[in-house]
Amino acid sequence: MSEPSEVLRVGLLGCGTVGSAFVELIGAEATTIEARTGLALEVVRAAVRDVNRPRAGLPPGLELTEDAAALVVAPDVDVVVEVIGGLEPARELVLAALAAGKPVVTANKELLATHGGELFAAADDAGVDLLFEAAVAGGIPIVRPMRESLLGEPIRRVMGIMNGTTNYILTRMTEHGDSYATALADAQLLGFAEADPTADVEGHDAAAKLAILATIAFGYEVTAADVAVEGISGVEDTDIEFARRNAMEVKLLAIGELIPGTDGAAEQVAVRVHPALVPATHPLASVRESFNAVFVEGDAVGELMFYGRGAGGAPTASAVLGDVVDAAVNRRKGSSASLGKLAPGRILPPAELASEYYLHLDVADRPGVLAAVAGVFGDHGVSIRSVVQQDHDDGAALVFVTHVARHADIVATVEELSALDVITEVGSVIRLVAETS
Amino acid sequence: MSEPSEVLRVGLLGCGTVGSAFVELIGAEATTIEARTGLALEVVRAAVRDVNRPRAGLPPGLELTEDAAALVVAPDVDVVVEVIGGLEPARELVLAALAAGKPVVTANKELLATHGGELFAAADDAGVDLLFEAAVAGGIPIVRPMRESLLGEPIRRVMGIMNGTTNYILTRMTEHGDSYATALADAQLLGFAEADPTADVEGHDAAAKLAILATIAFGYEVTAADVAVEGISGVEDTDIEFARRNAMEVKLLAIGELIPGTDGAAEQVAVRVHPALVPATHPLASVRESFNAVFVEGDAVGELMFYGRGAGGAPTASAVLGDVVDAAVNRRKGSSASLGKLAPGRILPPAELASEYYLHLDVADRPGVLAAVAGVFGDHGVSIRSVVQQDHDDGAALVFVTHVARHADIVATVEELSALDVITEVGSVIRLVAETS
Repeated sequence: MSEPSEVLRVGLLGCGTVGSAFVELIGAEATTIEARTGLALEVVRAAVRDVNRPRAGLPPGLELTEDAAALVVAPDVDVVVEVIGGLEPARELVLAALAAGKPVVTANKELLATHGGELFAAADDAGVDLLFEAAVAGGIPIVRPMRESLLGEPIRRVMGIMNGTTNYILTRMTEHGDSYATALADAQLLGFAEADPTADVEGHDAAAKLAILATIAFGYEVTAADVAVEGISGVEDTDIEFARRNAMEVKLLAIGELIPGTDGAAEQVAVRVHPALVPATHPLASVRESFNAVFVEGDAVGELMFYGRGAGGAPTASAVLGDVVDAAVNRRKGSSASLGKLAPGRILPPAELASEYYLHLDVADRPGVLAAVAGVFGDHGVSIRSVVQQDHDDGAALVFVTHVARHADIVATVEELSALDVITEVGSVIRLVAETS
Repeated sequence: MSEPSEVLRVGLLGCGTVGSAFVELIGAEATTIEARTGLALEVVRAAVRDVNRPRAGLPPGLELTEDAAALVVAPDVDVVVEVIGGLEPARELVLAALAAGKPVVTANKELLATHGGELFAAADDAGVDLLFEAAVAGGIPIVRPMRESLLGEPIRRVMGIMNGTTNYILTRMTEHGDSYATALADAQLLGFAEADPTADVEGHDAAAKLAILATIAFGYEVTAADVAVEGISGVEDTDIEFARRNAMEVKLLAIGELIPGTDGAAEQVAVRVHPALVPATHPLASVRESFNAVFVEGDAVGELMFYGRGAGGAPTASAVLGDVVDAAVNRRKGSSASLGKLAPGRILPPAELASEYYLHLDVADRPGVLAAVAGVFGDHGVSIRSVVQQDHDDGAALVFVTHVARHADIVATVEELSALDVITEVGSVIRLVAETS
C-alpha cells in the first residue's frame, strides 16, 4: 500500500491470559498487518481491577488503568476489546462503548449467550460492529464463515464438540482406559480443567457456545438458558467399552437444529448438550484430546466441519486480532456487520426431542427378566433395535439400543424401570447420533 | 433493512452444472438474501457456446447469448460470474470484465492456478474484486477465512485432501478391499470419476487447488506447474494392507509449506501432491468417501481443519453465491479485497524435500539379501527405522520404513536397488506424514 498507514488505537478491557496474549500478538504481527491492510495497530491502554498487581510479560509502554468506564468512551480509543469475561461489568461497559460509537470485539461467551439479543440490538442502533469470533471455539474461524460465506445458505443443523476439557477426559477414558475420576484429575493436573470443573463437565460452557452459534445460524435469539444440558459426569467405563465394541466413540455433543413448522405452526429451535455415541467413521469421532470441531449442515453446501483449538490464550488472541482488523476495515468504510434485532427463538421442549438411545441396566439374573423389561419399553411406545445380555458375578447387565424415540417416552420408561424389583440399577442412558452422509 | 433494496445484476459466463445450480440457488434464496443484505440479486444473462442446445432446469426468463465478450462489458451487468472453466477464453473474458470495472467471481481453479498472478494484478489495477472461494474445495469456506480471519497470522503449512475422486477410490480400497482398478471403475460408474480420470488420479486437480491455497497462505505467486505431483495409480493392495496393520490410512495429500530462509537466504515455498501414510488418529485420516479437508497450521492459532464437500454443483454454487454477495457489499462500500501484486514464490526443488518413507520390495528369498539391501540404504545416507520380512510362495517381501530422508537420496536408493539382481521388484514408495499435535 502506498498511502500512509492509518493508526488504530485499541482500548483493552482485561489483561489476563487472552488480553496479554493479544498484546503480545499485536507486537509480533504489527508489521505484517500494516503491510497487508495499511493499519497501524496500537494498544493505548488496558483496564484492570488492580493496577498494582504484579504482571509478567506486558510490554513496558502499556498504560494500565482501573477506570474501565472512562476507557470505553475515551476519545483516544478507536476500538474496544473486551476480554474480562463474566456478565457485569462487561455488559455495561460494552453497551457504553457501543453507545459512544466504538466498535467492540469480545471473547465473552457467557455475556453473549445471556445478553446477546440486547447487545446486538445496541450495536445495530449505534451502527457499529460487535464482533465475537473468539467467543465461540477460540481460534477456529466459524463465526465469520457462518455470517458471511454461508449467507443465503439455510442452515439446518450445527453440531459439535465445543468443550476441550470434556473431550480431553473422554479421550483419556477411551484410549487409556482411565475412569472418569482419574481422567478428570489428570486434566486438572495438566491445567485443562479448573479446580471446580462444573461449568465444563456439566455442559454449561458448551451450552453457551451453542446458544451463540444457534443465534447466528438460525437468525433467532437463543440463550444459554434455552439449552437442555446434560454433562459427562455420569459416563461409565462400561459405556466407553460398549462404544468401543460397537465402533463408536462417546463424545459430549452440542446440537442445534431448526425444526420446520408444519401445518402453519412457526418453526422451532431445538438446542441441547449431552453425551452421545458417535460412529467411529463420523468426522467428529476423530476429534481427540482438547480439540474442538463444529459440524454445519446447509441445504446447498451439504456438510461442513471446522476443527481446531477451542481455547487457549494464543488461538483466542488470534481470533480477537482478526476481528479487530475487520472492525477497523469496516470503520474505514463507514459500514458495520450487524445481526440486527433478533426475535427470540421458539424453543422445542426437550421432552419432544427424538433420538435413538443406548441404555445400560443392571438386573437380577433370573428367568423372565428380559420379558418384563422389554414390556416396559413397549408400554411407552419405545421400539427396541437390539439387546445384549452380559452375565456377571452377582447378576447380569442388559444393554439396549432403541429405535428413534421421544425423550419424554424414554424418561417415562426409565422411571418405570427404576421401580421394577428385578432391576438393580438403571445405569447410563446415552443418545446415539447417526451417520449423516 | 428499511432502505429500498439495491438491484445487483449478474452476468453469467457458462451455464453447466455449477452455472445452473447457481441460477437455481439464487431463485430459492433471493428473499432471504434481500432480507439480510438489502440486495436484490438477478441473473440478467448467461453466455453459452450454443444457445440452441436444449437445456433442462433453467428458469424460463433467463436470456442466453453466445456473445460472452459483450456480456462482460455490458452496462446492465454489475458482477460477472465465470463458471466456464479452462484457460481460454476464460482468461481473456475475466481480464476484460476487470478492465471494465466489473467485479468477477470465478470457480475456475485451472485458470487461477495458471494465470493467478496476472489476474490478481489486473484486479488490483482496476480496484475491483476477484473472488474465488468456489475454486478451491467447492463449498468449504476456506479462502475467506484464510484471507480475512487469519490475516496477521503467519501460516506455516497447508495440507489436505483436495480431490474427492481419489479419496473415494482410496476409501473403497481401504474399507472394501477393492483393488485400485475396481475402485476406479466403481467411481466412474457412480459419476465420481471422469471417463478419462487422469487429472484426478494423477494429482493434477489437487495440484491446482494447492497452488491457489499456497498463494493466499504465503503471499507469493505459486502456480500448478510449481507443484511436484505424484498420483495414486501406483498404490497397491499391499500398501493399503500395510497401512491397516500399522493403524494408518493411505491418503492423497496436497502439502504446501513455507520454509524459512537461513543465513540470509530467502524463504522458500515447498509444494507437492503425493500419496501419504497418515496415522489413523490424525483428523485427515477420518476424511472418507468424496469429502475434502484442508489442514492449516498457524503460529498463534495452532492447527485448524476445514472439512466438507469439495465438489458438486450445489456446494460450489453456494460458494459462488457467497462471493457474489461479498462483491456486491464491497462494491456498495467502494472497496475491494485485493491480493495485490504478488512476487513469484521461490520453489524448493522437490529433490530437497524431506520425509519418512515406506518402501515395499519384492526380493529373492535367500541368505544375505537383507544385508545387501540394507547396505544400499546406508550408502545413500538413508537411515532405517524398521524392516519387516514377509515370505511368500516365490520369494519374500521386505517392507522398510525409513527415518526422515531427502527425496533425492530416496530416489538414488531406489535406482540402485532396482539394479540389484536379488530384487524382483521395487514396489511402492510412499511418504509418511507424522502426527502433528
